Amino acid sequence: MRVDLNADVGETAALHDLGQDPALMRYVTSVNIACGFHAGSPHVMRRTVHLARQLGIAVGAHPGFPDVAGFGRRPMRLSADEIEDIITYQLGALSGIAAASGVTVTHVKPHGALYNLAAADAGCAAAIARATAAVDPNLILVGLADSHLVTAGREAGLRIASEVFADRGYDEDGRLLARSLDGAVIDDLDQVRRRAVWMVEHRAILTRSGSHLPCEVDTICIHGDTPGAPALAQAVRDALTAAGVTVAALKADV
Amino acid sequence: MRVDLNADVGETAALHDLGQDPALMRYVTSVNIACGFHAGSPHVMRRTVHLARQLGIAVGAHPGFPDVAGFGRRPMRLSADEIEDIITYQLGALSGIAAASGVTVTHVKPHGALYNLAAADAGCAAAIARATAAVDPNLILVGLADSHLVTAGREAGLRIASEVFADRGYDEDGRLLARSLDGAVIDDLDQVRRRAVWMVEHRAILTRSGSHLPCEVDTICIHGDTPGAPALAQAVRDALTAAGVTVAALKADV
Amino acid sequence: MRVDLNADVGETAALHDLGQDPALMRYVTSVNIACGFHAGSPHVMRRTVHLARQLGIAVGAHPGFPDVAGFGRRPMRLSADEIEDIITYQLGALSGIAAASGVTVTHVKPHGALYNLAAADAGCAAAIARATAAVDPNLILVGLADSHLVTAGREAGLRIASEVFADRGYDEDGRLLARSLDGAVIDDLDQVRRRAVWMVEHRAILTRSGSHLPCEVDTICIHGDTPGAPALAQAVRDALTAAGVTVAALKADV
Amino acid sequence: MRVDLNADVGETAALHDLGQDPALMRYVTSVNIACGFHAGSPHVMRRTVHLARQLGIAVGAHPGFPDVAGFGRRPMRLSADEIEDIITYQLGALSGIAAASGVTVTHVKPHGALYNLAAADAGCAAAIARATAAVDPNLILVGLADSHLVTAGREAGLRIASEVFADRGYDEDGRLLARSLDGAVIDDLDQVRRRAVWMVEHRAILTRSGSHLPCEVDTICIHGDTPGAPALAQAVRDALTAAGVTVAALKADV
Repeated sequence: MRVDLNADVGETAALHDLGQDPALMRYVTSVNIACGFHAGSPHVMRRTVHLARQLGIAVGAHPGFPDVAGFGRRPMRLSADEIEDIITYQLGALSGIAAASGVTVTHVKPHGALYNLAAADAGCAAAIARATAAVDPNLILVGLADSHLVTAGREAGLRIASEVFADRGYDEDGRLLARSLDGAVIDDLDQVRRRAVWMVEHRAILTRSGSHLPCEVDTICIHGDTPGAPALAQAVRDALTAAGVTVAALKADV
Repeated sequence: MRVDLNADVGETAALHDLGQDPALMRYVTSVNIACGFHAGSPHVMRRTVHLARQLGIAVGAHPGFPDVAGFGRRPMRLSADEIEDIITYQLGALSGIAAASGVTVTHVKPHGALYNLAAADAGCAAAIARATAAVDPNLILVGLADSHLVTAGREAGLRIASEVFADRGYDEDGRLLARSLDGAVIDDLDQVRRRAVWMVEHRAILTRSGSHLPCEVDTICIHGDTPGAPALAQAVRDALTAAGVTVAALKADV
Repeated sequence: MRVDLNADVGETAALHDLGQDPALMRYVTSVNIACGFHAGSPHVMRRTVHLARQLGIAVGAHPGFPDVAGFGRRPMRLSADEIEDIITYQLGALSGIAAASGVTVTHVKPHGALYNLAAADAGCAAAIARATAAVDPNLILVGLADSHLVTAGREAGLRIASEVFADRGYDEDGRLLARSLDGAVIDDLDQVRRRAVWMVEHRAILTRSGSHLPCEVDTICIHGDTPGAPALAQAVRDALTAAGVTVAALKADV
Repeated sequence: MRVDLNADVGETAALHDLGQDPALMRYVTSVNIACGFHAGSPHVMRRTVHLARQLGIAVGAHPGFPDVAGFGRRPMRLSADEIEDIITYQLGALSGIAAASGVTVTHVKPHGALYNLAAADAGCAAAIARATAAVDPNLILVGLADSHLVTAGREAGLRIASEVFADRGYDEDGRLLARSLDGAVIDDLDQVRRRAVWMVEHRAILTRSGSHLPCEVDTICIHGDTPGAPALAQAVRDALTAAGVTVAALKADV
């Protein structure tokens, strides 16, 4: 058994403040770096890339809708071409910064409203997969397990990684519960830890009602903007290791 | 005798309007595409790259200060690291978009206040050269003839291209006259045409007082935001050709 | 018979370039000034306010979604509170600039995707009306004739102005045809002129199929971003005047 | 003896996260709210205004250079007109939001690089004072004690408030030490507390070498982005109160 632990990072606005990212990054195996559209800046991106290089963890792009004021969490209606363009631009920008630091970008995971749209909408998913493959066909596309994004990535000939959330509730169709609903966000550390191990062991997600939905489980997301995220990441990682799971970055041949 | 004709393009804000760029691009041999910081957008960038590919002209990055409201014409005091980061980011973004269209970025030419600062300030020039070389050592760095940027590019091991302006006045030190001064902008088409040919033939610039300053003349800039820029470009190109000058994009071995 | 002619202005990005606005503003009686979210800048806003003051025409706010790259034409899903906040912010910003120039803002007209959403969605319309009334209950709210925005303005106790378009096609429900459809944009100058006079005389709009939908006709929009907009505005104004229509800004007691 | 305690707030980027502002605002008597150019957003502005109203503390505008990526800490070279315009715009935007909540803006305090430039440069100071007076001559202009901004405000007929910093070192001319210098930022809580009381009691600042520079002391700034700012504010307030100083918002007749 093997799984990747990933976190969205580089989402502070401040020029010289990485927030709790340095602490958090000690416990994950991959990071998804914000590319300036919903958060982040060239300077934060570079510093985060350097930190990832130093820690030996995988670097991915975390592109979002162009909406800093809304942190990329508000759906925008863009054409498929426009979605392709904003993915290409952001992925290119991070790739430039990574290349200048001798680091290769390994994966792409869309952010917020774009992630949710890509999970639910085949056209959006295809646009993201197309943009990713056009920039570099060796990139891994990370999407919600059993979603349109994973399917679109596969169809575009990309390697894909199915993501699950240990601290979020799921509905009966395997979609994340909206943050406004009861049970959408799971705060209890013990429960998060147990869910993480359970999902990896069972290759399934647990819905709100208690059903099991079998799915690929390649990577578990740790939300970097949760207070106490570093402690959460450490706890989940320790629990996985104790259960005999290898915690390691997505492999090239996933 | 050989020279490149270049224009700054993709500087419209609108999503689906390229302004007079398509007309202008018929007459130049290289374009410098705005990368979203002082002007431009992912969509305008892609459409401009496609147009350049179709016309068979060279594609370069035109990075600027992050200042849309000021069109990148207002100096900002950034650290050398920050300058390096904004060049890397913008160059990476355009490279991503170009790569996705099967186009290779050939050169980098900073915009506006950043161009002027790079001409006059060795630290800024070195940061830009460093960023360019780190992303791709095969890139050509375009700078004001006989300026710090050209020197810094050479020292960083980059091929460089010396740029002159046929429609701008120069002071006795070879610097562009500030736009607010008399004689800074030359409107007369005949005069612009004659100056272009003269500069290529003499490998020199003509200062305000009429002195000649010898310099390399690899590329002549046509300002894309001048009304009537396409006609100006056509006139300059025709005059150069009539004078026996080969008008062609910067070569790999400049 | 009386009608206002309005134009959306201040939508250039450039710091010192007002485009064709100065020419266009000679023929309209009201302008809606972009407030920096979809286009415009503090400097363009001030210069446009000064120009309007000099010409003696009415100044209104033209708030849009925060989306410069998309020119405010892409729908964004914001909460009612968020819509209220972006209207309040943009209206306040223009009011500050107008006040500093001794000018009073007389009206508010949302832009692009926000205008369309406000026409079709009662919640969005109510949020805009609420924001407008909270900043200044004397403001006139301009909306698509017979739309939710006009209703919401009336319910919020605001004076409202019903807007029609002489150069756009309408469907059978009185909605503007999407720009991608045939007949959505009417280019023929004669036809635009005739439609303008007809709408004012009949207090109705003409649908695609030729039906008449009676409605208030307080103001006619001239699209400022159409090439040749100044000539179009002049032609429409002359045609209205020749038909005995008084062309004048919205009155305080509309 | 009387003094105001102020803090810069609303500087988080996130839509629904006010950071430590709610805790900090319990201990200060005035807040300066970021207006969206260097930080902040319409939604954060409104929520912060509501919180200030609830706590009964004074609301001021905190306008900065248009530079989110640099948090307004990087000098930009703008013309006097452009400075006037960005102040007017930001002040207008906050005034709109405040008015919609039944709150009156009482003061203006520039942010970061703009604050420093206004302290040192008479032209910048005059532009800020002019913009403030043009929007509302009853506003109080807050500037570094004994600086150009205070002088310019007085000359523009504005009430002014002289600001000192208990947690920052001063050079022999009464200017703040650059953050990169030793002794620029004072971390020790006891020392900050003692300095605050000392400055109010002596109406003077203490320079690096130990000299006393007499000056007005109307308001003390608590840096809201310091970790532990709420505890710092509480400690300073308690120390001032214990020393018999009345801690209260700037009065209308300062």
